[in-house]
Amino acid sequence: MTEPMSDRAPSFDLRSRASFQHWVTHTLRYNDQDPIGHVNNSVFSTFLEQGRTAFLHPIVKSAAHPGLDIVLARVVIDFLKELHFPGHVEIGSRIVRLGTKSFVVANGVFDGASETCAATGEATLVFFDTNARRAVLPPPSVRAEFERLLGG
Amino acid sequence: MTEPMSDRAPSFDLRSRASFQHWVTHTLRYNDQDPIGHVNNSVFSTFLEQGRTAFLHPIVKSAAHPGLDIVLARVVIDFLKELHFPGHVEIGSRIVRLGTKSFVVANGVFDGASETCAATGEATLVFFDTNARRAVLPPPSVRAEFERLLGG
Amino acid sequence: MTEPMSDRAPSFDLRSRASFQHWVTHTLRYNDQDPIGHVNNSVFSTFLEQGRTAFLHPIVKSAAHPGLDIVLARVVIDFLKELHFPGHVEIGSRIVRLGTKSFVVANGVFDGASETCAATGEATLVFFDTNARRAVLPPPSVRAEFERLLGG
Amino acid sequence: MTEPMSDRAPSFDLRSRASFQHWVTHTLRYNDQDPIGHVNNSVFSTFLEQGRTAFLHPIVKSAAHPGLDIVLARVVIDFLKELHFPGHVEIGSRIVRLGTKSFVVANGVFDGASETCAATGEATLVFFDTNARRAVLPPPSVRAEFERLLGG
Repeated sequence: MTEPMSDRAPSFDLRSRASFQHWVTHTLRYNDQDPIGHVNNSVFSTFLEQGRTAFLHPIVKSAAHPGLDIVLARVVIDFLKELHFPGHVEIGSRIVRLGTKSFVVANGVFDGASETCAATGEATLVFFDTNARRAVLPPPSVRAEFERLLGG
Repeated sequence: MTEPMSDRAPSFDLRSRASFQHWVTHTLRYNDQDPIGHVNNSVFSTFLEQGRTAFLHPIVKSAAHPGLDIVLARVVIDFLKELHFPGHVEIGSRIVRLGTKSFVVANGVFDGASETCAATGEATLVFFDTNARRAVLPPPSVRAEFERLLGG
Repeated sequence: MTEPMSDRAPSFDLRSRASFQHWVTHTLRYNDQDPIGHVNNSVFSTFLEQGRTAFLHPIVKSAAHPGLDIVLARVVIDFLKELHFPGHVEIGSRIVRLGTKSFVVANGVFDGASETCAATGEATLVFFDTNARRAVLPPPSVRAEFERLLGG
Repeated sequence: MTEPMSDRAPSFDLRSRASFQHWVTHTLRYNDQDPIGHVNNSVFSTFLEQGRTAFLHPIVKSAAHPGLDIVLARVVIDFLKELHFPGHVEIGSRIVRLGTKSFVVANGVFDGASETCAATGEATLVFFDTNARRAVLPPPSVRAEFERLLGG
């Protein structure tokens, strides 16, 4: 997605818990680990998905506007610290940019209840009509909620 | 499923390639490995699913009988040898038992093109109507194909 | 493993929470779901592994007897109910059989905090010396703890 | 990693098969699919890992320099087209930037043998000493091979 988006200034420090608007907790699994003995990088994609799904599905997927969904266009993940089983992660989410048909949600993945940020990420998503199979403008009520989150 | 099923005698040696009716090949992935440095046991469930899906979906899921599917009721896996990345597996499948609404498909998971059997498995599946959400008798044409496979 | 094992009578009802000695909780993930819209069967293998790992690693993997581990020889899973995201599972574990070099741990996978048992399973594991790479008799202290659990 | 890196001009079109130096093929799995009925985004992280592992492990992980490994610092993935089971992907890899202790490998994920690029990605990796647990300069022979690939 190359459309221009609003941008908040100053930018958030995604390594700080204080930056996030929504939190979800997920348990680590034995087979999240790879032969290096740490949680494999692909699981971080899943952590981001867990964070944004819990944050945004209640807003986007509603009986009030059936057929609306959000699809992933781009993901960026910065790996800062290894994660080790057993344990859990706490995943913070915040809306950081908003376009007409797309937006960016930022995430921080924290090691348990600690201040240790294991990874930060940004996912660009597109509002999508599952019937027409194309990007769409979100309904006004959804747009308003995203604007509120962007400013929050 | 506790219904009585036909049983072939003598039983097949699932560690022998000669026992199988259908084959599919799948590549191993780096993150199939766990900290012990071998392919994690949960991936073997996926190998069995790959084998039976490629074998049976063309028979079961057809425009001739929409809404018919097969769902898993039970799985048994015997782990015989470790698998190591990189490489591939060759998964053999065969129908070994048939009831009125259910059947058993047996699998052998072989290490690449070798005679080394890494695991054997048996999966009990139920013919299922996805609209009625319940077990059903399969249509006669599907039943006939399974009877042919049972005897083959 | 074909060695004879002790067996408790009467056998436990693995669909009942009252049967289990140890519990662990795990969160469901969006991508645990497959196209049918429920948690894929391979994830149940992971749930069993989560249960027995949390239950038995503190007993088996200890500084008192380095090199001792447990490896999976066989798994049986009975699928009783679908699981749906989002949510969590509570996994119960109990020792149900004990041989000289192997044992069976049974599991029940429950849908959240409810009494709904989504699956039961039994895993046969072998005491293993990671240096010698072969099955071994467990040290007396480990044996004693497993005997205590078998009788408990 | 913020160290300055060499950059090739003009940049490669990662959606074109002609841009890549190394190829690997991987089969799709039934449970790569999520409830939307397409391959879940986290699997693309695995595809990139498959591509770079097959490309670079033979160069980096050698008896000539034990303890050398490469660890992931950053990943960027652009999702262009859905992937559907069954099928396979062909993953192209190429070195696009080189620093003193880090480098960037670019990937294209293609739908089977077609020209359809399902995703492009860039992974920043760091040369790592697994004994000292820190970033290191690679040995001259490894450096020379990466320089050759950068110019190739």
